[in-house]
Amino acid sequence: NSSLKVFSLNSNPKLAEEIADHIGTTLGKCTVSAFSDGEIQINIEESVRGSDVYVVQSTSSPVNQHTMELLIMIDALKRASARSINIVMPYYGYARQDRKARAREPITAKLIANLLETAGADRVITLDLHAPQIQGFFNVPIDHLQGVPILSDHFEAKNFDDLIIVSPDHGGVTRARKMADRLKAPIGIIDKRRPRPNVAEVMNIVGNIEGKTAILIDDIIDTAGTITLAANALVENGAKEVYACCTHPVLSGPALERIENSKIKELVVTNSIPLPAEKYNQKISQLSVAPLIGEAIIRVHELKSVSILFD
Amino acid sequence: NSSLKVFSLNSNPKLAEEIADHIGTTLGKCTVSAFSDGEIQINIEESVRGSDVYVVQSTSSPVNQHTMELLIMIDALKRASARSINIVMPYYGYARQDRKARAREPITAKLIANLLETAGADRVITLDLHAPQIQGFFNVPIDHLQGVPILSDHFEAKNFDDLIIVSPDHGGVTRARKMADRLKAPIGIIDKRRPRPNVAEVMNIVGNIEGKTAILIDDIIDTAGTITLAANALVENGAKEVYACCTHPVLSGPALERIENSKIKELVVTNSIPLPAEKYNQKISQLSVAPLIGEAIIRVHELKSVSILFD
Ligand SMILES: Nc1ncnc2c1ncn2[C@@H]1O[C@H](COP(=O)(O)O)[C@@H](O)[C@H]1O
Ligand SMILES: Nc1ncnc2c1ncn2[C@@H]1O[C@H](COP(=O)(O)O)[C@@H](O)[C@H]1O
Repeated sequence: NSSLKVFSLNSNPKLAEEIADHIGTTLGKCTVSAFSDGEIQINIEESVRGSDVYVVQSTSSPVNQHTMELLIMIDALKRASARSINIVMPYYGYARQDRKARAREPITAKLIANLLETAGADRVITLDLHAPQIQGFFNVPIDHLQGVPILSDHFEAKNFDDLIIVSPDHGGVTRARKMADRLKAPIGIIDKRRPRPNVAEVMNIVGNIEGKTAILIDDIIDTAGTITLAANALVENGAKEVYACCTHPVLSGPALERIENSKIKELVVTNSIPLPAEKYNQKISQLSVAPLIGEAIIRVHELKSVSILFD
Repeated sequence: NSSLKVFSLNSNPKLAEEIADHIGTTLGKCTVSAFSDGEIQINIEESVRGSDVYVVQSTSSPVNQHTMELLIMIDALKRASARSINIVMPYYGYARQDRKARAREPITAKLIANLLETAGADRVITLDLHAPQIQGFFNVPIDHLQGVPILSDHFEAKNFDDLIIVSPDHGGVTRARKMADRLKAPIGIIDKRRPRPNVAEVMNIVGNIEGKTAILIDDIIDTAGTITLAANALVENGAKEVYACCTHPVLSGPALERIENSKIKELVVTNSIPLPAEKYNQKISQLSVAPLIGEAIIRVHELKSVSILFD
């Protein structure tokens, strides 16, 4: 078996270190800095010739910077004769731009897939894509890991006795179902609809939440509008308490303030996107995906099936 | 002939407007903004179906942002059935990363060429590439315009009587020769060499500068170290006065302060990169490349040779 090397770029250095730890190795030496004019300068400081290289980089904010770092790193690794270049993207930026919802929109999620392949990526390991169809945007193998087991385990340990798992919109019902199976709970849905164009949305709760502990689950929490409105509606309609969780804590704009001021008791997220100190908040717990990703890398490297990690 | 449309992204809106003016059209409607999390959102607000589209965007600072805007715009135009997508990049960012100078370096200038083609670019119109070999990084046609005529005309109007055109390093001698031909002047070279490793460089001036007006010419002025040291050396060695010029005013880091404190009397640049108000400086004059680029677009669109613009 050829040598396995893990490199970190600038998005998730701590997670990358935990992943290397899990595998029983240390991070490859490499500096990613900027020239005076802001152009990215990458120096790979050890040989990668013939190695199977795993590059850890979420294309989280600043997304364009992180994307270009990744593309340039792939180019450098390819020219340095790495045997395979495996991209570990815990968070796949631009995943929400995955279709033409209106005329003349780009499909940036597909563009990113093409750019990664053009640069020289041989495989992608990622987590909870906004739409699983994005797997089909790639011609190279892609391993699509799931955060639900990690999030579920956290709540299982709390031994709630009357639980309901709630999807904040129609798109997330499958995800809620998966968590409900693990926690042996029923599901609910926040069923929003607009009776007529230009009339305010009506929020209807499907499922019996009366007196229950509700857990809202989503893939991404960005500005936190959807999730906090949902949490407040649940409490107003009789839920005993409301927890929320997601895989990817984008948390941009007014997100933290909204969460702080909402009825959400605890927000549980993963470290697919690191939370800078100023985004921490007594309500937020962060769980590590390093064991999951580390295990996936070991299995890929040993040519074993990764799908066993999927439930 | 099919319809010609010019769109501007965020790097050079003023230049793009001047180009559209020169062609006798107005800019296409399009907004380039950001979602809350910083992801780029592009809305093309008019049909481009069957049009020959010209997108004006220098990949100047912030280079990664400007590069991603360009790639996403190309993707949107392609999916909106533009007949051809022509990229007008007055300044080609990452051009200095055009070879492996050390082990395990990326060749980002080539990566950018591949990314543009992957996104769907059909042609590139650019100006004074740091190395003309970058033309060969593309499989699609590329028109390589030159700034020397514009810079030369500016100095010709001053009717200096005892002129010498000086290249600040060995790499720029061909460029100095072109300007010297136009201004009917001799050339000089700042000949730097390092006698032994880890010993300071020696700066030797080749050519007779005694009592002359010297014009330093370079393609890019970035931190302005090279050009200001050269200017001061020329004055210390007997030049009457020193002007400097370049096509691409990157002007990062200490550049403005160095220019201000140097013996340079006037720095003449083009608007391939706009100078934000805070970078203006009594010493700097900026010339427009809009007529040159506008003419190139007209010729490309009418299927005429662009090479006539090269001298
Ligand atoms: N970064 C982003 N932030 C907010 N909205 C986005 C972003 N990227 C794409 N979108 C929009 O969100 C829609 C996808 O949302 P969804 O219905 O949850 O799949 C797309 O049609 C886009 O218009
Ligand atoms: N943005 C940049 N700023 C400063 N130096 C750079 C930049 N990009 C590349 N370089 C370095 O500059 C060298 C090319 O300079 P040159 O000899 O003028 O062609 C390359 O070998 C790079 O190491």
